[in-house]
Amino acid sequence: MSTDETNKPGFSLSKFLIGRPLETTALPHQRVTKRVGLAVFASDALSSTAYATEEILIILALAGTGASTLGVSIPIAVAIAILLAIVTISYRQTIFAYPNGGGAYIVARDNLGELPAQIAGAALLTDYILTVAVSISAGVAQITSGFPDLLPYRVEIAIGVILLMTVVNLRGVRESGQIFAIPTYFFIVTMFATLVVGIVRALSGSLDTVTGVEVVHSTSQSLTLFLILRAFSSGCTALTGIEAISNGIMAFKEPRSHNAAVTLVWMSTILIVLFLGITFMAHQVGALPSETETVISQIGRTVYGENSILYLLVLAGTALILLMAANTSYADFPRLAALAAGDGFLPRQLTYRGSRLVFSWGIMGLAALASLLVIAGNARTTFLIPLYAIGVFLSFTISQTGMVIHLRKIGQLKPGEVVQGREAPLEYDPNWRLKMFISGFGAVCTGIVMIIFAVTKFTSGAWFVVVLIPTLVFIFFRIHRHYQRVAQALSLEGVPVDVSPRLVQTIILVDDVHAETVRLVNFAKSLGHPWHAVHVATNPDKIDAVRAKWEQRIGEGELVILPSPFRLLADPIREYIEELQAGSPDSYVHIIMGHLAMPTYWEQALHQNTAVVFNLTLSRMHNIAVTNVPYQIPHSHLK
Amino acid sequence: MSTDETNKPGFSLSKFLIGRPLETTALPHQRVTKRVGLAVFASDALSSTAYATEEILIILALAGTGASTLGVSIPIAVAIAILLAIVTISYRQTIFAYPNGGGAYIVARDNLGELPAQIAGAALLTDYILTVAVSISAGVAQITSGFPDLLPYRVEIAIGVILLMTVVNLRGVRESGQIFAIPTYFFIVTMFATLVVGIVRALSGSLDTVTGVEVVHSTSQSLTLFLILRAFSSGCTALTGIEAISNGIMAFKEPRSHNAAVTLVWMSTILIVLFLGITFMAHQVGALPSETETVISQIGRTVYGENSILYLLVLAGTALILLMAANTSYADFPRLAALAAGDGFLPRQLTYRGSRLVFSWGIMGLAALASLLVIAGNARTTFLIPLYAIGVFLSFTISQTGMVIHLRKIGQLKPGEVVQGREAPLEYDPNWRLKMFISGFGAVCTGIVMIIFAVTKFTSGAWFVVVLIPTLVFIFFRIHRHYQRVAQALSLEGVPVDVSPRLVQTIILVDDVHAETVRLVNFAKSLGHPWHAVHVATNPDKIDAVRAKWEQRIGEGELVILPSPFRLLADPIREYIEELQAGSPDSYVHIIMGHLAMPTYWEQALHQNTAVVFNLTLSRMHNIAVTNVPYQIPHSHLK
Repeated sequence: MSTDETNKPGFSLSKFLIGRPLETTALPHQRVTKRVGLAVFASDALSSTAYATEEILIILALAGTGASTLGVSIPIAVAIAILLAIVTISYRQTIFAYPNGGGAYIVARDNLGELPAQIAGAALLTDYILTVAVSISAGVAQITSGFPDLLPYRVEIAIGVILLMTVVNLRGVRESGQIFAIPTYFFIVTMFATLVVGIVRALSGSLDTVTGVEVVHSTSQSLTLFLILRAFSSGCTALTGIEAISNGIMAFKEPRSHNAAVTLVWMSTILIVLFLGITFMAHQVGALPSETETVISQIGRTVYGENSILYLLVLAGTALILLMAANTSYADFPRLAALAAGDGFLPRQLTYRGSRLVFSWGIMGLAALASLLVIAGNARTTFLIPLYAIGVFLSFTISQTGMVIHLRKIGQLKPGEVVQGREAPLEYDPNWRLKMFISGFGAVCTGIVMIIFAVTKFTSGAWFVVVLIPTLVFIFFRIHRHYQRVAQALSLEGVPVDVSPRLVQTIILVDDVHAETVRLVNFAKSLGHPWHAVHVATNPDKIDAVRAKWEQRIGEGELVILPSPFRLLADPIREYIEELQAGSPDSYVHIIMGHLAMPTYWEQALHQNTAVVFNLTLSRMHNIAVTNVPYQIPHSHLK
Repeated sequence: MSTDETNKPGFSLSKFLIGRPLETTALPHQRVTKRVGLAVFASDALSSTAYATEEILIILALAGTGASTLGVSIPIAVAIAILLAIVTISYRQTIFAYPNGGGAYIVARDNLGELPAQIAGAALLTDYILTVAVSISAGVAQITSGFPDLLPYRVEIAIGVILLMTVVNLRGVRESGQIFAIPTYFFIVTMFATLVVGIVRALSGSLDTVTGVEVVHSTSQSLTLFLILRAFSSGCTALTGIEAISNGIMAFKEPRSHNAAVTLVWMSTILIVLFLGITFMAHQVGALPSETETVISQIGRTVYGENSILYLLVLAGTALILLMAANTSYADFPRLAALAAGDGFLPRQLTYRGSRLVFSWGIMGLAALASLLVIAGNARTTFLIPLYAIGVFLSFTISQTGMVIHLRKIGQLKPGEVVQGREAPLEYDPNWRLKMFISGFGAVCTGIVMIIFAVTKFTSGAWFVVVLIPTLVFIFFRIHRHYQRVAQALSLEGVPVDVSPRLVQTIILVDDVHAETVRLVNFAKSLGHPWHAVHVATNPDKIDAVRAKWEQRIGEGELVILPSPFRLLADPIREYIEELQAGSPDSYVHIIMGHLAMPTYWEQALHQNTAVVFNLTLSRMHNIAVTNVPYQIPHSHLK
């Protein structure tokens, strides 16, 4: 997208969609309270409760759909909740250690070096893309649970939502932070209400079990440890999003770290209660894994009844928070991509802020890749889950390992000593050993889960991520090396600067002799260097006419005819320039050509645009300069 | 496709696929005999017998699939055969009148003027695209009749065939004219053999009726005249391709017109016999219209038995000639498009011959449009047939009307008089009245059929063509007007040529100060005009560093900093140039910028390529010249 489109007068589609351009000085420094912060940062984490239970059940269903088999989901959920508590405590420490933002990339870069940082970066970027794909697929699944007629259009709906979200984010959404509060709290309230009503009805004996569910194809494998570990790792998607607050500490009001830490604890508590509650309630109503109806929908309609408005509110709340969760990746992905690009590991274009001060290329790249995943997976969450969460757990592990190193540095300080580190101040802390143990324990736990995940899901898709992340890291380092080499090659450090004038040989490219040619000759003469004209004879029948018109209309300067038996434009010119250069090394050959600029794109398309072909070839040559002299035909002449 | 890619050393994919470039002087002047000419030009016409009968039956099936209803196909086929004879006699006259090629476009342009010529052009171009789509869809249907397992992949197979055919045609196929003889004669022999064996078995009473056909959904409409006319117009697709010889007279050995005329009569005779024979035999075996098996396949397996090798040969022969028929459009479409483009009614690029002397853009345009149709129609012939043939009959009508005018001109000559017309010599002919009557009668007949076609097929798709052709004609004339206006605006006719030198103000665009910047300063100093440098401050934090490096490294010339609060590149430059121009009208502003040329595309993509943005904006300005100075970083520095 050209950022130069935005200031044109008249109607502009991009201005209509994206809004008026913003000045650089308008970069917002808005800060959020704990209450708004919870809404903004919790949507990703809380929304995973919408599918985590279901994904556990889908794996368990491979061993049959009996109540005792599916009941294994309860101890699995408890194990996940414990893991969640460990990670929360560990991340709480990161929040205090990195008050300016302690994402895995920054913590790794600060403590572990470039390679772990790039691995964390690759893992996170992959997972942000997957978050968009998974959350939107799951959100659409809630909608189609309530309105099964929409089921055949789920891919189209999902792509439509991605497009809408892309436009909203290209406008920039920070000013609307408070809007996020509504769906998050709406979801929390409806889900808690559903759980409470469900428990009351269960205790009073009036809760039925769910009926009419089109169950997934179940097999009768035996319930092996491997299968239970697979179900556990599927359920671990509940932990995704928990790192969001540590990335976004800067957005909180002072005292930043304190507020962020309190919000994190609140978020984790709500998440654990919701996840355990949903898993328990799913067991109570006998919810079954299904391709056409989500577990949340089964709980909702069993608790409230199929035609209840409350049931639809549950679906709406769940769909909304899932879409909000996708939206958080629209903030995180471009920011992390810009960070890595600033370090020279991703294309530099990702650091540019568009007309609305957002990282436009990052937003569009995320949208394109997530759309591809949604299409490839036919908007089914289950297809995407095996790809998901490896990256998250990899970044958890790297981040907490980084914290171990960070705390060891702190332990080496003298009591009371404060040192300014690269990313954050280091201050002696008497509890450093305990904290280091906690981070280390977290790292070990998440590392083990990551390995369980990679092993149990390897054949169902995790292999792709296992291959992808090293590939991305390799590419990142190739990009980095490229930028370093270019910088070295361009560096003037210790190089003598010689700008003494050199000979300039000017040639004018002539296709035909008309008003545009006169302009070229006029410019060449105005420059005042020796010049002559060159015509590439792609059509031998035209030579005589061109020569005659040159004599008659221009009447000065030599016109050289270059034969072109293969009707090529650029090759004869290239050879001719090489001859000129051979005769006078160290000189510049200056090629002047016309460019017929048309007022509209379709009119431009009707012309040869040979300049493009020439520029492509000539840009590979040394010691030349290529001048395009635009010639506009007034719009009035073309009407 | 860049025609400049072909001469690079080393392996080139395009050279591998398309072949080595050919010199312009290699344009072939090969001439074909009647026998080869029949094979080359008849494939399109003869191949239509593969689906014409079937399309009649599909319409009749709307009134039921009883033998008496489907038997109406016999009188319909006879009527079509008579129409075919009339058109053949009329086209035979065209061949003698236009010995240099008498396609509808040329005959209309010569006798009726630009508008009818463009209508004929639009109609023919549309139909060439449809010929590719219909023939390949029908050819794939023959293959899937024999191998029903391939049915789900018919779109993929069809697209694959189009791609293959595109590559073959980009290579240029004229040298292989004789190769065409094999499938055409193979088809003629296998079909005649099938008909003869079928008739013998029918007379001896050993011919069964076909079984196991999955019949199309039939309704029980009554057999109205409207329905019969609809079936008739569907069957008229048998006439498509008959005009091919009159387009290609130039390809025949001398005496050209005589040889072409003899070939035309032979072709039409074979076509009539095959079409009537297939329709009759379809009735004999009780062939039923089906989505999954073609009528040819039903005849073949009834006559020879399902597992007979002869049955597979019939399918192979039919599939082959259908693919050959599609191939003829690959010759006709680009040639007609180049003709119309030469007249200025289509983009001029269509007149360029690629490295292999074929009209590359035309071939690729045809392939793209035909692929779209195949995908839209799911490779089903029945979807495409209502779009087809209107264009053919429209061009028949225009062509024969043109002949009426042509013959009237001849009638106005004195006996024995010869006049040189624009496209062909006019020579007095005592039989001009009879010939004019024949052409006129042909025009009326084909005109009526066209109207029947448009009316009876209007709702099932013909409306699209009825809208499309006028739209195309409108676009053609818009293009024509554009080229005329541009030519007028560029004309130097009666305009005084003033090339007296003007003031040149030079500015250098500086993003950062490094080796590339030194090159720019060196070039500006070599030109010897007053110059200064300009830095657009998209990142205000960089200004001081750039200014310091400029002082330290360059140390001469002024560096102007342009603020850019909206981070735009081109707009501040545009405003600055406008200021310079306001201070000194009539001068040139010469903008010099660098272009970091990378050895590979992916490396290039890692750089900002701001030159593209600049060129886009600057090309809209007056009295400027934009110089790109390419700067290459040696490949060895990037390894």
